[in-house]
Amino acid sequence: MAAPRVDLNSDLGESFGAWVLGDDAAVLASVTSANVACGFHAGDPSTLRRTCADAVSAGVVIGAQVGYPDLVGFGRRFLDMRPDELTDAVLYQLGALEAFARVAGDRVRYVKPHGALYHAVVDHEEQAQAVVRAVAAYDRDLPVLGLPGSALLRHAEQAGLRPVAEGFADRAYTSDGRLVPRGAAGAVVEDPDEVARRAVAMVVDGEVTTVDGGRVELEVASLCVHGDTPGAVELAARVHAALRDAGVAIEPFVA
Amino acid sequence: MAAPRVDLNSDLGESFGAWVLGDDAAVLASVTSANVACGFHAGDPSTLRRTCADAVSAGVVIGAQVGYPDLVGFGRRFLDMRPDELTDAVLYQLGALEAFARVAGDRVRYVKPHGALYHAVVDHEEQAQAVVRAVAAYDRDLPVLGLPGSALLRHAEQAGLRPVAEGFADRAYTSDGRLVPRGAAGAVVEDPDEVARRAVAMVVDGEVTTVDGGRVELEVASLCVHGDTPGAVELAARVHAALRDAGVAIEPFVA
Amino acid sequence: MAAPRVDLNSDLGESFGAWVLGDDAAVLASVTSANVACGFHAGDPSTLRRTCADAVSAGVVIGAQVGYPDLVGFGRRFLDMRPDELTDAVLYQLGALEAFARVAGDRVRYVKPHGALYHAVVDHEEQAQAVVRAVAAYDRDLPVLGLPGSALLRHAEQAGLRPVAEGFADRAYTSDGRLVPRGAAGAVVEDPDEVARRAVAMVVDGEVTTVDGGRVELEVASLCVHGDTPGAVELAARVHAALRDAGVAIEPFVA
Amino acid sequence: MAAPRVDLNSDLGESFGAWVLGDDAAVLASVTSANVACGFHAGDPSTLRRTCADAVSAGVVIGAQVGYPDLVGFGRRFLDMRPDELTDAVLYQLGALEAFARVAGDRVRYVKPHGALYHAVVDHEEQAQAVVRAVAAYDRDLPVLGLPGSALLRHAEQAGLRPVAEGFADRAYTSDGRLVPRGAAGAVVEDPDEVARRAVAMVVDGEVTTVDGGRVELEVASLCVHGDTPGAVELAARVHAALRDAGVAIEPFVA
Repeated sequence: MAAPRVDLNSDLGESFGAWVLGDDAAVLASVTSANVACGFHAGDPSTLRRTCADAVSAGVVIGAQVGYPDLVGFGRRFLDMRPDELTDAVLYQLGALEAFARVAGDRVRYVKPHGALYHAVVDHEEQAQAVVRAVAAYDRDLPVLGLPGSALLRHAEQAGLRPVAEGFADRAYTSDGRLVPRGAAGAVVEDPDEVARRAVAMVVDGEVTTVDGGRVELEVASLCVHGDTPGAVELAARVHAALRDAGVAIEPFVA
Repeated sequence: MAAPRVDLNSDLGESFGAWVLGDDAAVLASVTSANVACGFHAGDPSTLRRTCADAVSAGVVIGAQVGYPDLVGFGRRFLDMRPDELTDAVLYQLGALEAFARVAGDRVRYVKPHGALYHAVVDHEEQAQAVVRAVAAYDRDLPVLGLPGSALLRHAEQAGLRPVAEGFADRAYTSDGRLVPRGAAGAVVEDPDEVARRAVAMVVDGEVTTVDGGRVELEVASLCVHGDTPGAVELAARVHAALRDAGVAIEPFVA
Repeated sequence: MAAPRVDLNSDLGESFGAWVLGDDAAVLASVTSANVACGFHAGDPSTLRRTCADAVSAGVVIGAQVGYPDLVGFGRRFLDMRPDELTDAVLYQLGALEAFARVAGDRVRYVKPHGALYHAVVDHEEQAQAVVRAVAAYDRDLPVLGLPGSALLRHAEQAGLRPVAEGFADRAYTSDGRLVPRGAAGAVVEDPDEVARRAVAMVVDGEVTTVDGGRVELEVASLCVHGDTPGAVELAARVHAALRDAGVAIEPFVA
Repeated sequence: MAAPRVDLNSDLGESFGAWVLGDDAAVLASVTSANVACGFHAGDPSTLRRTCADAVSAGVVIGAQVGYPDLVGFGRRFLDMRPDELTDAVLYQLGALEAFARVAGDRVRYVKPHGALYHAVVDHEEQAQAVVRAVAAYDRDLPVLGLPGSALLRHAEQAGLRPVAEGFADRAYTSDGRLVPRGAAGAVVEDPDEVARRAVAMVVDGEVTTVDGGRVELEVASLCVHGDTPGAVELAARVHAALRDAGVAIEPFVA
């Protein structure tokens, strides 16, 4: 039986001009996919260029981390964009990042919504379709990365795109496989060892302990690790090591 | 002897969200090249999509009209960007517009700086090189459109790109082939008939009357017409008709 | 019995840099209160200065038209701001406009939310409170202008501020005194004579015909007229004339 | 003879949304004047509110740190704004910050240009006058803080405002009392002890050693210390201690 495989993805390129966010260089050492900001929630052009060049040097796949046009809110606030506006905003960001991915010698190879958009397209049918329409219009070979069971992945599949499910080893899950909302008790798993265990369980056993102590099946091709909060980089390295020690092949979900 | 040929270019896609600027549909009927704004000085994503689609429907070539990141100043104010910042800003805009050009069934096929950047790269060596570096890094087949004798076109040529010189039939010229700066007396040619005559003279005779009554040689492959000031659209149509009546083939400078 | 009185208010100062919106000079001739944009959804600093100066010259009261930070969306899209963020955004806009009101010789004398924020605070308790908190923190003498029966006016009253109800003569009403949402059939009253009649009925009779043919009481101290759509300016003048002809004193709701 | 007095000022409130810059709380312990960003080069509304509240709690005077509208460039790039545009941009920022200063229980009590604008108004007559015009129109009692011998302070004085000269203990000076431009050899004084000595010499002796080993007179009412570079906060505390140990009264230049 082939060794279980998983991709590790993280948000990168989220500095903006004089403001630096996250330790991208350190995170690149632990991940196989880089969700690179595209300038709408974070990421000025020079940050995008550097991040794409660093990702290519590190052999990390470049993905477009598309968000709402809301710098001051860091894309973390739901914005009731018309579907056509959202499709165009995603296309704009995809094209902009593509320029730097190409200059760095690679291409944008997947798309992941960011922040409030990421959570909106779990259930917001129109915005999920709008994101999928943009990806389909841009490049039908681009996989879409999102939560298992989300409207986003459902519409991606219906549109003939490749949906890729991801998991969060540092987040609690409800019994129906959803993330416990941030701010709710126990939403974030703090203990690094527990996070590492959950990562291995998700990949090797295809399941995770739920917030009420049960277990839920979770088939994920990628795990999201963070790089912009204190201790996050160490946690990413720890998850990477735990997976490797469990015999998991850590490889990007795109060839 | 082959009929003289010239391209007619104009700035398009310069609306922004609820704000509309210019009568793009009317201008598209008179030009063969569209300098499409890329979101930094004007042009929200939906405007870019519509403009690229309309240009393709009208058989008009899409060019990237790149500017300084200065919406409130409409890119008309010199911004002392570091060369590497400017190169990245141009790359970002090129990529963003490319997404919509491709979705519309075409590609970005030339680059023209906008506003204060356009005038800066006439003499500003570093900014001219920065723009050329971006174009060369993005796609060496993209011609660069600018003023004859400008640092921009010189650096484009030195970098192995195709420089394309353009003329302004509605602007006065000095004896050394430079534009009389806006605001100076006589800088703008107001009389439509005179503008039409100058357009034909530039293309057929390869020269233009200077502000001091002399004549200066002017070899241009494109004429810039406007679409965002009162009467501009009519003037563009008039120039188009005058050139056609003079036996000039009005064709884009890119195949 | 004293003649019925009403204020006429309109959105002004909604140009942005090179983009002009609305015929402010013409609108100022018909209204007694100017809802001046504050730079977040529209209105660059120079537009704010001119608009305040023109309002003072025309004897029109200056109000702060505060919106979400969303230029490209013109503040017409709901943004899920945290209440404290929204309070700070309103304070920022109030202070910025105040500078120009003072330089023009007056003060900001009321606050009216704009666009999607205006409609959000009809029912969104937290955002309504957030706006009211900003006004109360800034200047407790500032009235708050909004829809009758809205959470905004309720919270304003509870906070000890002066709530001011406004009506829309060119909009249809439901039987519970709410606006029929834009986009719904019959939401906008097109016929100018009908709009003028409804304006008089709202002020003189304190009621308006509802979309289903009934009548609903509507006590309003101000009527909102528009200036940024074709024919709007003429309609504003018509409403002004009809009210005057009906013996209504057209005066600002602030002394 | 009264003890020599000096104010210590530093840039604060330069975070923006999710991006944090500088250790404001630590800097507030060492300074008597806070140059608070106003949203154009840095500082979202909530950052402005917190910074004003923290400054008032620390007994530190609030000043408006006004800059070019250039977030991505952090206001560090010269922008060729028309004088009237610049005046309006300064007025806008002054008013916006005033709202938070008032809510915090104080007022904006001086104005200091930021970054590229700070350096432009040393010699750029039109932009210096434009900044002074804004301050004079807003509140004639507001002092203007800038470099000795600058056009800014000259025009401030001519306009009847109070010019306040500041020094930089961590920067090298030319023999004519100008700052050695950043990037030039020796422009920044690295050794903390040397910086502390220079601070005391500037205040007690009214002079400073120049980059070519000479001495130049320098009459300053304030010293600028930094808080946004590694070690800067410690350096500010050190300068504060050195001045106090030299018997200097560290007090704001505004009552």
